Amino acid sequence: MTRLVDPPLADLTETMMDMGQRARAASRALGLLTPDDRTRGLKAIAASIRAASAEILAANAKDMAAARDKGLAPSMLDRLALDERRVEAIAAGVEAVAALPDPIGRELARWSRPNGLDIARVAVPLGVIGIIYESRPNVTADAGALCLRSGNAAILRGGSESAHSSGRLAAAMRSALKAEGLPEDVIQLVGTTDRTAVGLMLGGLGGALDVIVPRGGRSLVERVQAEARVPVIGHLEGLCHTYVHSGADPEKAVAITVNAKMRRTGICGATETLLIDASVAADLLPRIAEALEAKGCELRGDAQARALMPNIAPATDEDWATEYLEPILSVAVVDGLEGALAHIDRWSSGHTDAIITEDSAAAETFLARVDSAIVLHNASTQFADGGEFGFGAEIGIATGRIHARGPVGADQLTTYKYAVRGTGQVRP
Amino acid sequence: MTRLVDPPLADLTETMMDMGQRARAASRALGLLTPDDRTRGLKAIAASIRAASAEILAANAKDMAAARDKGLAPSMLDRLALDERRVEAIAAGVEAVAALPDPIGRELARWSRPNGLDIARVAVPLGVIGIIYESRPNVTADAGALCLRSGNAAILRGGSESAHSSGRLAAAMRSALKAEGLPEDVIQLVGTTDRTAVGLMLGGLGGALDVIVPRGGRSLVERVQAEARVPVIGHLEGLCHTYVHSGADPEKAVAITVNAKMRRTGICGATETLLIDASVAADLLPRIAEALEAKGCELRGDAQARALMPNIAPATDEDWATEYLEPILSVAVVDGLEGALAHIDRWSSGHTDAIITEDSAAAETFLARVDSAIVLHNASTQFADGGEFGFGAEIGIATGRIHARGPVGADQLTTYKYAVRGTGQVRP
Repeated sequence: MTRLVDPPLADLTETMMDMGQRARAASRALGLLTPDDRTRGLKAIAASIRAASAEILAANAKDMAAARDKGLAPSMLDRLALDERRVEAIAAGVEAVAALPDPIGRELARWSRPNGLDIARVAVPLGVIGIIYESRPNVTADAGALCLRSGNAAILRGGSESAHSSGRLAAAMRSALKAEGLPEDVIQLVGTTDRTAVGLMLGGLGGALDVIVPRGGRSLVERVQAEARVPVIGHLEGLCHTYVHSGADPEKAVAITVNAKMRRTGICGATETLLIDASVAADLLPRIAEALEAKGCELRGDAQARALMPNIAPATDEDWATEYLEPILSVAVVDGLEGALAHIDRWSSGHTDAIITEDSAAAETFLARVDSAIVLHNASTQFADGGEFGFGAEIGIATGRIHARGPVGADQLTTYKYAVRGTGQVRP
Repeated sequence: MTRLVDPPLADLTETMMDMGQRARAASRALGLLTPDDRTRGLKAIAASIRAASAEILAANAKDMAAARDKGLAPSMLDRLALDERRVEAIAAGVEAVAALPDPIGRELARWSRPNGLDIARVAVPLGVIGIIYESRPNVTADAGALCLRSGNAAILRGGSESAHSSGRLAAAMRSALKAEGLPEDVIQLVGTTDRTAVGLMLGGLGGALDVIVPRGGRSLVERVQAEARVPVIGHLEGLCHTYVHSGADPEKAVAITVNAKMRRTGICGATETLLIDASVAADLLPRIAEALEAKGCELRGDAQARALMPNIAPATDEDWATEYLEPILSVAVVDGLEGALAHIDRWSSGHTDAIITEDSAAAETFLARVDSAIVLHNASTQFADGGEFGFGAEIGIATGRIHARGPVGADQLTTYKYAVRGTGQVRP
C-alpha cells in the first residue's frame, strides 16, 4: 500500500478498489467506537510520529534529494522539507486534534411535532473521504487526524515528490492504530505515484468514496471538474482583496495591508489586490506602498494609482484576475464602498476579502454584501485558516458553496441523520 | 421563456445561457432585499395562483389530453392532474412557505478568539439553483417558493408532459413578483421540452448555476452522474425497511407496517421490505400479512417467511434490491437486531428505515447504527416528508451524504459565510 514502484494498470485498479473496500469496512468499524476510542487513537498517533521522527526525517531526505535533482522551485522545496521542529509540530497538531470535541453523535437540533413525533438531527461521519493533495507531508498527518476525529476513513493521495515522507508518516499512524486495537485502514495512503490513481479516486472506487477533497493547482482542478463522479469539497484559488475605506485608521491600514500581503505570500489567504478609496488615496497609498516596498513587495497600479505613484507598473485586467502567491500586489483606486463592492463582485474568487475602516455602518454593509466564504473587518486576510478560527486544524479552505465554506475542520467533515422517536404514529 | 415550440440548438443554448445570466442578476438583487420583501413576494404569488386558477386548469386540461393520447400510466396521470382543490392546495402551500421563518442572515454560530477576533457564521443563499423534475405541476410552485424563501434564484425544468400547466403556474408567479417590484427572474421555467436543455443545465450554464437538484427516475440519475459539472443535491430511490423486533407491540406492528407500505405506495418513503424477528414471526407475520392482503398488497417472502405462509411467492435478491413503488412487499425473517442491521446495511438505499419495538435499548441501537438519512422508532416510514418534519414544504428528500440529507426545505437551500470583526488584528 505504500509501495513506491508503480504497478501495472490492472494491478493498480485492483489495489485501489481493494483500498476502497477496506476503507468502507474501517469506516463501519469506526462507527461502532466511542469518542474516547478516537481520542485514544489520535494520542497514540502523535506519540508514534514522535517515536518515528528519525525514520521520517530519513525518508524526507530521500524526497528532498530527488526534488532537488528535479529542480523543484524553492517554495515547493520549503513545503516538502521536514526537520525535527516540523515533525514535532506535526505531532503536536495531531494532539491538538485529539483535544478537540468529538463531533459524532452530537445533537444539532431536536424538536417535537404536534403528533408527538420527536425529531433529532444528529451529526454522523461523511464515510470515506478521498483527499488528493500537494507534496506536503504535514497534510498527510493533518488530514488523517481530522478524518479520524470526525469518524471518517481517509484515502490519502499526496504529491509524488513527498511519497517517501508521507509513506513513513502514514506507516507511523497506522501502526499506532493497530497497536491500540483500532481499525488501521481508517488511514490509507496511495503508495503509487502513477496519476492513474487520481483518476480512479475521482471515479469513486466503485462507490466506496463518499466525497473527494482535492487540493492543488489548476490542472488538478480541471481534472476534477472533468472526471469527478463523486461529490467534491473544492479548494480553488484565493484571490483575496483588502479594501481601505475612506474611514480607515491610517495605522491599521498600513499594518493590516502589509500583513495581509507579506506575512506569507504563498498561502491562499494572502491579499492579492489592494482597493483604496479615491478620497484617501493621495494621503494613504504612498504610506502603504512605502511599507510594502520596504518588505520587498512589487506594486502594480491602475491609472489613478499610477498618477499618485508614477514609478509603479501598470495593472491590467489580467492582474485583477491573478492569484500571484508572490510578493506582488495590484492596486486599484475605487470610488467609495460601491466601487469596492463592484470590483470584488467582478474579480474576487469568493475566498476571503477584508475592509479597513472605523465607519461601522460601512463595515457592516461590506460584511453583508460581499459574498465570499470569509469577510473581515479591520483584520488581515491571512486569518483565513482553520487554526486561527479555533478549529484545531484544517484540511483546507473550501471555496465551493455547498456543504462547507471556508476552513474545513472536523465539524465540516460530518453530515447528519434524523433520529425520529415515535409511540406508534402512522401518517393520515 | 415559456414558449413551447422547441427552438434550434444554437438558439436554445443562447436562451439557456441568458436564463443563467438573468438568474444570477436576480439572485444578486434578491440578496439586497429584506425577509419581509421575500414574504411579501410569496404572499403575492399565492394570491396570483388563486386568481389564475381557471387559466391554470385550462392549461392542465391540454397537458392531460396530450398525456392520455400518449398512453401515460394512471399513476403518472394522477401526478399530472389538477383540479380546483389541488390548485388551492398549491396556493396554500406557497402561503405555508411565506409563514416560515426566513433563513437568510441568521447567525448559526458566533464565538470570540483569544486575539479578540469575533467570528460569526451567517446563513446565506446558495445562489442559483437548477431543478430538474418530473411532470408534477405542484413542484413548480413548491420549488419556486422554497427558493424565494431562501434567497435563491430558481431555474425550473419540469417534465415535458406538464409543460402547459407549469408554464401557466410560473407565469402567475412571475407576474406577482413583477407587480410587487421584486426581481421576477428569481423564478424562471425552461419552456422547451427539448432534453438538450437538461444537458445544458447539467453543464452549469457557463458557471451561472451553483447547484443542481435532480428529481426523477434512473435515466435522469444516470445522466446526472455522467454529465453534471456542478454540485448536485441528489434524490435517489427510497428502498425503505420496516423492522419488527421481538419486543414489538403487536398492534403497533400491524398498524405501522400497513401504513408504511400501503398509505401511498408510489412515494419514496413507502416501505418496500418488512424484516421480522424469527422469534415472533410465527405469531405476528400472519397477522401483518392478513392486514396487508386485505388492502390488496402482494407479499414475497424468503424461505422462513414461506415456511409460515406457503401461499406467498418467493423473494430473491432482486426483490431486496427493488423499490417497487407498488402494492408489493418483500418479507425477510431475520435473526434478531444484528440480522436486521446486516440486511439493512446490505440493501437499504439509505433513505428511511424503521424499527418497531417496546425495547428502548434495541431501539436506540437501531437509531444509532442504521446509517440512513431518516431512522424511526415506532413510526411509519411514510413520515419521511418535509411537511411532516415541520419544514413547511420540501423540494425532495436528499439521499446523498453531503450538504443536506433527508427532507430539503428552505434551511437546506442555504449555505453560510463567516463575518469576522476585528480591531486591527494582524496574524503573527
